[in-house]
Amino acid sequence: MSIDPRLVSDTLLVCESHSASIRLMNDSRWPWLILIPHATDATELHELPPQVCSAFLADVNQTSRLMKQETGCTSVNIAMLGNVVSQLHCHVVARNHGDPNWPAPVWGFEKATPYNADLPQTLLAAVVKSFS
Amino acid sequence: MSIDPRLVSDTLLVCESHSASIRLMNDSRWPWLILIPHATDATELHELPPQVCSAFLADVNQTSRLMKQETGCTSVNIAMLGNVVSQLHCHVVARNHGDPNWPAPVWGFEKATPYNADLPQTLLAAVVKSFS
Repeated sequence: MSIDPRLVSDTLLVCESHSASIRLMNDSRWPWLILIPHATDATELHELPPQVCSAFLADVNQTSRLMKQETGCTSVNIAMLGNVVSQLHCHVVARNHGDPNWPAPVWGFEKATPYNADLPQTLLAAVVKSFS
Repeated sequence: MSIDPRLVSDTLLVCESHSASIRLMNDSRWPWLILIPHATDATELHELPPQVCSAFLADVNQTSRLMKQETGCTSVNIAMLGNVVSQLHCHVVARNHGDPNWPAPVWGFEKATPYNADLPQTLLAAVVKSFS
């Protein structure tokens, strides 16, 4: 199954892990990665076959660990919502005291600020290296 | 480790699963369960030991499956945020077209509407039975 056009247009491809496409939300307000499991029409996590689910969540955990290490954030927000785009995908977002909308959620908060030449290169390099 | 007082005061105990305390958010606007893993000081999912993490996520998945089955919701929102209460906990929320704040998130949206005599008994009974 291909990736929903809304997810494609809102994000930039970082790399492919064993279980998922890992993409950067094109919104420089927060370091924000999205994992989209390969080749499934699941809309809910519990619909994934157990082994596929375990592999996907291992990659989510690895991404969360890298997010914490590379950004030093206060907390990592992990969420699978599916209210706007039903295709199963997992948000991994670095949050900090005083960031936009803290401590409320990032979803639906005002307008995205697209990246220019200011991509979070250290984070992206760590993710690419980890999943290569 | 005991459960954070804010989580205790915002919720009602439903049951204890193998891996977690399962509690109902005392907010009748959405069917909303919270799972709090037993005896850990983790604040992030990736900090749990692998076997503990797997057992916890299996219970999250089972709760999500029950939420979908018993409420017939459009989507199940699964999230671990930790911006307000740092103790690791997972939200499992039934969402529907036209519900309060749809399709935006439930967190931080206006004031909770506590339950009176209108508890979601069918959902709660299914959860208790499933984890007994």
